[in-house]
Amino acid sequence: MREEGATALVVFDLLNVRYLTGFRGSSAVAVVDLDDVQLVSDFRYRLQAAQEAPVARFVEIEGPLIEVLPSLLLEDGLVAIEGTHLPVTQWAKLEPAMAGRPTTVVEGWVERLREIKSQAEIEAIAAAATIVTGMLQRLTSMKVVGRSEREIALDLEIWARQHGSEPVPFPLIVASGPRGAMPHAETTGEPVPPGRLLVVDIGAAVHGYAADVTRTFATGPLGDEELQVYATVEAAQRAAREAARAGMTCAALDGLARAIIDGAGYGELFRHSLGHGVGLDVHEAPRLSANNDGSLEAGMVVTIEPGVYVEGLGGVRIEDTVLVQAEGIRVLSDFPRALVTLD
Amino acid sequence: MREEGATALVVFDLLNVRYLTGFRGSSAVAVVDLDDVQLVSDFRYRLQAAQEAPVARFVEIEGPLIEVLPSLLLEDGLVAIEGTHLPVTQWAKLEPAMAGRPTTVVEGWVERLREIKSQAEIEAIAAAATIVTGMLQRLTSMKVVGRSEREIALDLEIWARQHGSEPVPFPLIVASGPRGAMPHAETTGEPVPPGRLLVVDIGAAVHGYAADVTRTFATGPLGDEELQVYATVEAAQRAAREAARAGMTCAALDGLARAIIDGAGYGELFRHSLGHGVGLDVHEAPRLSANNDGSLEAGMVVTIEPGVYVEGLGGVRIEDTVLVQAEGIRVLSDFPRALVTLD
Repeated sequence: MREEGATALVVFDLLNVRYLTGFRGSSAVAVVDLDDVQLVSDFRYRLQAAQEAPVARFVEIEGPLIEVLPSLLLEDGLVAIEGTHLPVTQWAKLEPAMAGRPTTVVEGWVERLREIKSQAEIEAIAAAATIVTGMLQRLTSMKVVGRSEREIALDLEIWARQHGSEPVPFPLIVASGPRGAMPHAETTGEPVPPGRLLVVDIGAAVHGYAADVTRTFATGPLGDEELQVYATVEAAQRAAREAARAGMTCAALDGLARAIIDGAGYGELFRHSLGHGVGLDVHEAPRLSANNDGSLEAGMVVTIEPGVYVEGLGGVRIEDTVLVQAEGIRVLSDFPRALVTLD
Repeated sequence: MREEGATALVVFDLLNVRYLTGFRGSSAVAVVDLDDVQLVSDFRYRLQAAQEAPVARFVEIEGPLIEVLPSLLLEDGLVAIEGTHLPVTQWAKLEPAMAGRPTTVVEGWVERLREIKSQAEIEAIAAAATIVTGMLQRLTSMKVVGRSEREIALDLEIWARQHGSEPVPFPLIVASGPRGAMPHAETTGEPVPPGRLLVVDIGAAVHGYAADVTRTFATGPLGDEELQVYATVEAAQRAAREAARAGMTCAALDGLARAIIDGAGYGELFRHSLGHGVGLDVHEAPRLSANNDGSLEAGMVVTIEPGVYVEGLGGVRIEDTVLVQAEGIRVLSDFPRALVTLD
């Protein structure tokens, strides 16, 4: 805020509000001054705010925020308004109410703070990753072939909830055969066939922090192309894990994995970026993509997840959630990456 | 669109996209012409769109939407842009790209269509409500006193998932004693005490459609004030159920329940509106509040949920999900409203 000359920042994104104050309710705005945070909400959240957000000063409002916001801006000067979660229709009402105050719509200020995790945040993500590892271990001891994808996903989700996970941070993906060729496949009621690839992209959450992990399994002997795709993705993922460290650009790490997949002739079939930050949101900054020249920094938690998707055949994706350190990474999701065959 | 003179509507809200096309993915925009719907997304969702949204024409884009949107607007004329889910920062980029085309930012167009449910939508909500009824029945057969709120909520959630519910549409609330005095209470790890009120606000979802139901229980003999609060809320909820019908204004129904609670001296402690629409979103239009002069219409599905919250003592809320009909309502959540004591 000081760098940008702002004396206040109005935060609309609820995850940013939670990050700044601890408040987990579903309706609030944070008004950040240079030395104070106000948490603005209605009577329904007063007790909850006192418990979860003791550092913030709770401001209880009765009517729409726009009527009171100007009076909450205690200092003169530029007001930064977080625009990424402020709908156009709400801004149309708020802007005139700010008459006389200089305002600027900004994006990414709090998200940039969120990129570097504290020790407590790292511990929460590591705890979530440990639950995911348990889910994968459970999967290897289950009967899989012939059961529906949905039944398997539900079994894993229930296991996660019973072992300390909050509601899972995204719909768990269990996608067999050709359905695995969709990077964002939906889990279906179809039975898992034998002798195919099976993509399992699952997560868990602890204290609001997610872990996001994918393994691809075989459900019996695979054909040559499936094995070759698997070996390619596994090599690319390993190379990226071994190379990742603070100071490297996101684009460079993406490029390193992409070069291996390109070299095997599958470059056209790896059409998403290498990974993304993980935290309060399962997809957050930084993005590990070809057009992100920003550098990895110690304390970032990101996924490394190359994938190759062959329409009609299946997909392979191998994804870990890892902590970036000065001299490499610490892998938080510790489960084998060699091809495992499920029954 | 014809009434407003628009030849295209650009839909950003994913629930509205799902409503219009069937597409359930997490990234897409719908462009609605007078006789055509385009579903605009990237390669990750191509196969999913073909399965879920066969009525829509899929448009696969590589870069940002703003670069292609003008070329997707096939007819001349006014372009309506849905503003409720379009962030200011995105609009700032889109607006210049629309140069030369008249545009208007609109809100609520699709939400108004969503207020009146089709037979298939009603059946989905009814199926979800039946699951919730089962959850409440399970609760009455469980040991409750001494177990943690969180453990009880998780048990109910798992039961729901095992009996046909999709991920529950909101975090289930089990709030005992003074914690029930928060209308949006968080479920805690605290044990349920004997001889107190217990608010249980739970839901389920089928085909994306939610049901939202609350019952308040006793965990042993209650004091006089708790019993009086319960009787008051129960009477107000019954009166509202008996009076509700198509043609009545939302404000009138809210006022009728509020008058009963006012008459018992608890008016100050019933500080939220009487109810809300339920559908793809667990809170959607119409709002059953004092300032909504719109009328209930046949085919609307709404909650009726008066509540009284006594700080330090506890809360009582009784909530049903009901279908509005010409001559009254059909209650979709059929579970007794008389006070039930749990062990």
